[in-house]
Amino acid sequence: MVNTGRQYFLKPDIDIILEKGDIKAISQVFDELHPADIAEVIELTDDKHLGLIVDVLSPEALKDVFEFLDEESEIKILSLLKRPQVREILDEMPSDERADLFEVMAEKDKKQYLPLMPKEDREDVLTLLSHPEESAGTIMSTEYISVNPDNTVEEAMEIVRERASESAIVYYIYVVNKRGHLKGVLTLKDLFLAKKKQKIKAIMEDNVISARVDEDRERVANLIKKYGFLALPIVDDRKCLVGVVTVDDAMDVLTSEATEDIHKLGAIAPIERGYLKTNIFKSAWRRLVWLAFFLIVGTFTGSIIKSYDYVLASVMGLAYFIPMLSGTAGNAGSQTSTMVIRAIATGELRLSDTIIVVLREMSIGVIIGIILSVLAYARAIYWLSNPMIGVAVGLSIVAIVVTSTTFGALIPLIIKAIHLDPAVISMPLIATFMDVVSIFAYFEISRLVLGL
Amino acid sequence: MVNTGRQYFLKPDIDIILEKGDIKAISQVFDELHPADIAEVIELTDDKHLGLIVDVLSPEALKDVFEFLDEESEIKILSLLKRPQVREILDEMPSDERADLFEVMAEKDKKQYLPLMPKEDREDVLTLLSHPEESAGTIMSTEYISVNPDNTVEEAMEIVRERASESAIVYYIYVVNKRGHLKGVLTLKDLFLAKKKQKIKAIMEDNVISARVDEDRERVANLIKKYGFLALPIVDDRKCLVGVVTVDDAMDVLTSEATEDIHKLGAIAPIERGYLKTNIFKSAWRRLVWLAFFLIVGTFTGSIIKSYDYVLASVMGLAYFIPMLSGTAGNAGSQTSTMVIRAIATGELRLSDTIIVVLREMSIGVIIGIILSVLAYARAIYWLSNPMIGVAVGLSIVAIVVTSTTFGALIPLIIKAIHLDPAVISMPLIATFMDVVSIFAYFEISRLVLGL
Repeated sequence: MVNTGRQYFLKPDIDIILEKGDIKAISQVFDELHPADIAEVIELTDDKHLGLIVDVLSPEALKDVFEFLDEESEIKILSLLKRPQVREILDEMPSDERADLFEVMAEKDKKQYLPLMPKEDREDVLTLLSHPEESAGTIMSTEYISVNPDNTVEEAMEIVRERASESAIVYYIYVVNKRGHLKGVLTLKDLFLAKKKQKIKAIMEDNVISARVDEDRERVANLIKKYGFLALPIVDDRKCLVGVVTVDDAMDVLTSEATEDIHKLGAIAPIERGYLKTNIFKSAWRRLVWLAFFLIVGTFTGSIIKSYDYVLASVMGLAYFIPMLSGTAGNAGSQTSTMVIRAIATGELRLSDTIIVVLREMSIGVIIGIILSVLAYARAIYWLSNPMIGVAVGLSIVAIVVTSTTFGALIPLIIKAIHLDPAVISMPLIATFMDVVSIFAYFEISRLVLGL
Repeated sequence: MVNTGRQYFLKPDIDIILEKGDIKAISQVFDELHPADIAEVIELTDDKHLGLIVDVLSPEALKDVFEFLDEESEIKILSLLKRPQVREILDEMPSDERADLFEVMAEKDKKQYLPLMPKEDREDVLTLLSHPEESAGTIMSTEYISVNPDNTVEEAMEIVRERASESAIVYYIYVVNKRGHLKGVLTLKDLFLAKKKQKIKAIMEDNVISARVDEDRERVANLIKKYGFLALPIVDDRKCLVGVVTVDDAMDVLTSEATEDIHKLGAIAPIERGYLKTNIFKSAWRRLVWLAFFLIVGTFTGSIIKSYDYVLASVMGLAYFIPMLSGTAGNAGSQTSTMVIRAIATGELRLSDTIIVVLREMSIGVIIGIILSVLAYARAIYWLSNPMIGVAVGLSIVAIVVTSTTFGALIPLIIKAIHLDPAVISMPLIATFMDVVSIFAYFEISRLVLGL
């Protein structure tokens, strides 16, 4: 039984073996690992040892490993191989992964590798690369098994045998008429259980769920998840079958979209590579932009305090409540935005729910605000023994919490309504915005209550 | 071709038809919908119309719909059915979903439904329910196809034919010896391409990757994702095959764990149901707890300001910078925590990386801090034309940002080291904690620089 994740424990040992150049030991270790684990070792290995690893792996094993490598390592390894072997690897790569590889490749590498492929594959790459960003076309594979509605089960079995090795999904067999229109689907199990002389059209499911090639890839992934499919057929605008998106691609999409959303919520510009793989200066820059923006907005909040100088001068105790109030505003707002943004991403909330959501959040704001205001009032009385300050702070809390929950819900929905991704709204952004509002509300309410 | 997501557009129409009680129209609409879509209609429908829907659906169709329903709707529908039909549905449900159903069922319902099942199924439910929370055992299905290593391909095909309809995954066939030990795996494709008289042990892959029944379900889902499997076999501590986790369950786990992490990052106690399905008071309560906690911590920050009263009294302009500084502290800290928490969740960061991560974040903090301090200094000079205040604010920014990035990285890693989920750390929690630290650092640095 293979122990998974073993490459982590092995990593130090492998480093020692690589340092020694002990080819026999390396090949012994690799023999026992799954290609996905070898790929992980390669991604973690120093560039200088890559040549050794490539020498150790058989061409067959290398092809298997390629399926699990990230594009950057693929490019490094291709540069170490001779042309016939590059040709063979490019020939056998799944079409979607091959297109991903060419997408990140430098121009000079493209010029070198594209001519190595047969015309058909070259066109396939260029077509896949032409699809709009984040569309189904960018994650689909063009290798699938299709049969004609008039084929018999026996004929279909023969087609499956021929095409099985190069298909992205063997379990689903798509039924396509002469003009390329998607007419039905059946599973390998259906074929297996049917009589040999039966026609495909008699046993196929003709109510096929499919997606268009230009549809958003996250939506396609959510469809696969919802219906529990192993793959979803992709059609063009004439309803001709052009590819399939498989469940493993769907899972990758959903995970990376979740990571992207989480980073955006934390106000970090999306990074393409892993946390540790990103250069420190790039990583600093990606956060700095937002931090600088927030700092400048923060100084506006300062300006508001400055403009209420005279209020603060007469009751300096008001300053003690600034962190509490601005914190509460930011926290209440970002809680609400978090929930609403996630519910929009998973498809649970739609624009048509806007009114319900806003009313909901206002009510929740009123409930929370009233309870928190009692706490805040108590604290104010204890500190300053001036009940009017307590009243001012309490009223401010209610106003601030209701504003925060309402806007926290409304802003992502507005962003969605103008066809942007609601996840562009980060929690710090909501918090900073609510800061400005809360400080203004606080001083204005205090001024009125205290009669200054 | 079925238009997906149509139930949303149909919903108002279906409501009208249901109100009228027009059985013929309902059954026409349902005939064209995928069971997953009918399930969605049922979940959105008023309870009073459920009886009508149940009457319209054939027992066969109802079984298909059950696969996609949430447990709450399942319970409602079971209560509308006669005993023989309940028995039939319970009999045909996939074992993992049946266990999920019994998990949320009220005691009185359990007493009513458990006796309807044959002894074997009853034991199956009770065994599945006995697995530790969030373990592989809670999401696995006990229906899979297994053959003996000494079976011939022909015999194996016969077993597949018999078991296909009730298996969670048909595409993988597991090879198990007489004592139940998992010895190998093959795909339906392998079987399909092999010669009829060959022995299974000659064509099976004997290097099987599996997971233990008590392993964390998120880890199991990540394994399925990493290796691109359609299912992963689950073994007990004697390495006997006890179930399979399929890729659709893995996808559900990864999505719901991501939602849970996002909610936790936003400081919302996890909700079991969807956003709109959760009661307003429950939703308010789940946020209130954290908000009240933050408010109380916020008053400590106020106490710090109070204790530096004399500093503030002599240079009131220091108050203007409070929102900017506490905002920057919170934002820098929550950015870092967000990245680190997500990288831990996806398995990219491990405890062994702690030192690298902390050094990285300190360096990033220094770079960001120095740049921001220039901005802050400029703003301070512009506002107050006292260069020493500018120096105090600038120095504070550097100290605060470095502290925030360092602690923002260190805290999730410490939480992980004591075997808790790092996602218990929310961004507002980091922000509130950094608030306290930043206000203290600010006043202390100002006191020293201004010689007060």
